[in-house]
Amino acid sequence: MTYCVGLKLNEGMVFLSDTRTNAGMDNISRVKKMFTWQVPGERQIVMLTAGNLGVTQAVISKIDEAITDHGSNKETILNTNSLFTAAELVGQCMQQVQQDYGPGLVSRGESSSASILMGGERLGGAPRLFHIYSAGNFIEAFEDAPFFQIGEHKYGKPILDRVITPDTPLQDGIIASLLSMDSTLRSNLGVGMPLDLAVMPTGLLGLSQNRRIQQDDPSFRAFSEQWSTRLRDAFGVMREMDV
Amino acid sequence: MTYCVGLKLNEGMVFLSDTRTNAGMDNISRVKKMFTWQVPGERQIVMLTAGNLGVTQAVISKIDEAITDHGSNKETILNTNSLFTAAELVGQCMQQVQQDYGPGLVSRGESSSASILMGGERLGGAPRLFHIYSAGNFIEAFEDAPFFQIGEHKYGKPILDRVITPDTPLQDGIIASLLSMDSTLRSNLGVGMPLDLAVMPTGLLGLSQNRRIQQDDPSFRAFSEQWSTRLRDAFGVMREMDV
Repeated sequence: MTYCVGLKLNEGMVFLSDTRTNAGMDNISRVKKMFTWQVPGERQIVMLTAGNLGVTQAVISKIDEAITDHGSNKETILNTNSLFTAAELVGQCMQQVQQDYGPGLVSRGESSSASILMGGERLGGAPRLFHIYSAGNFIEAFEDAPFFQIGEHKYGKPILDRVITPDTPLQDGIIASLLSMDSTLRSNLGVGMPLDLAVMPTGLLGLSQNRRIQQDDPSFRAFSEQWSTRLRDAFGVMREMDV
Repeated sequence: MTYCVGLKLNEGMVFLSDTRTNAGMDNISRVKKMFTWQVPGERQIVMLTAGNLGVTQAVISKIDEAITDHGSNKETILNTNSLFTAAELVGQCMQQVQQDYGPGLVSRGESSSASILMGGERLGGAPRLFHIYSAGNFIEAFEDAPFFQIGEHKYGKPILDRVITPDTPLQDGIIASLLSMDSTLRSNLGVGMPLDLAVMPTGLLGLSQNRRIQQDDPSFRAFSEQWSTRLRDAFGVMREMDV
C-alpha cells in the first residue's frame, strides 16, 4: 500500500510519500513513489504515485522516454505551454498503460487502479497541483481543497482537515504532512519508512528540500515522540472534561 | 455509512455509535445502530451494527423475535450458557439473513456486507467482546487488541492506537472513543450526530451510562472545541521542532 500527500499552499507546495510496497503480505519491499523533473529557471515538476506498481512505473517510464527521445519534437511535460497540458500528457500515458494491461489484470481478478499527484510551476505561470486518476482524467486543487492524498489517506486526514488552509505557512505544511504520515505509519502496516519529502516554494522554480527521511533518522524519531507526548498531554486535559 | 467502536478494558466496556444512514447521497437519514438487552442481575448485552441496513435490522429483529417467542424453549442470546454461544446465535441469524437476501442484492450490484460488535457479561462469566462478520463467523477481543471498530474506522484509529490498552481506565476509554468519533465526524460526511454511548462497568451486569448525545449538546460541543484547541496548541509546539 501507499500514503502520499501533496499540499498546495500560497507559499508553495509540499510533497510527502512513503516507500513501502507489497504484493501480498509476504512480499514486502521498498520502492520510490516520488519523481521530480526540473528545467532550471523554467519549470519544476513533482509526481507522487499510488496503486498498481506496474502501472505507475510504466506511466513514469513513458513520461521519461518522451523527454529523453531527443529525435522527435514530441510534446513532453517539460516543454508544454501549460501545466494543464502536462497533466493531460500524464493522463494519456495512464490511459495507454491501462489499455495495455488493464484487461489482463482484471481478468486475473487484480486491480489496475492507480493514481498520480502532479504538482508543478513554470516560469510565468501559477503553481498547480493535479490528481490524475486511472482513467486518465484529473482534478485540480483550488482554495477550497488545498491538498490531495492518495493511497491510505483516511488515517492522516483529520490533522490535515484541522490545520491546512491556503494561508498555512510552508513550514507548517511540512509539519502537518509529517504528522499526517506519522499517524498513518502507526495505524497501517502497509505504509512504511523511509519517507521522501520535497518542498517547492512558490516562485523558486526548484526544490528547497528534496530528501529521504530514513527509518533511523534521529530528528524524525524525536519529532514522532514529541507528537506522542503532546497528544498524551492534550488527552490528559480532555480527561478532565465533563462530557 | 457508519462508525462504531467497542472497547474491552479491564474496568469495563465502552460502546459508541453514530446514527447517520444513507442510501445514496440524496437520501440521508438517522437510524439507531446500538441495541441493548438486559436480564437484571444476570446479564447485559450491547450490539453495534454497520453495513447494509436491511441486513442488520433483520438480524436484530430475528434476535428479538427469538427472545419474545415465549412459547418455545429456543436458545436466545439472553439464556445461553455462554456469551460464545450467544455470538454463535447472532452469527446464525446473520447467515440466515445473508442467505435470504444476499444473492438478490449481489445480482443488483449491491452489497449485503454487514458486521456487528457484540459485547456482554453474564453472572459468573468474564466480559467478552465479539466482532461478527457477514459470513456469521466472528472473532473475539483479547488483550493484544482490546478494541474493535466497524464502518468508517480509519480516521479514528490513530487516537485509539495511541491511548487504548486493557489497563486504560474506563473514563479514559470514554474520552478516547469520543475523540475517535470526533475526528471521524470532521473528516467523513457519512458519519453524523447524534451519538449513542453505552458504558458497561465490569461486574455491574448493567449499564452505568446509556445515552444519546445530541447534535446541539453543549458539553460535547465544548469537548470538541477543547480538543481542537489542544491539537492546535500541540501543533504549535511541533512547529518549533527541527525535522
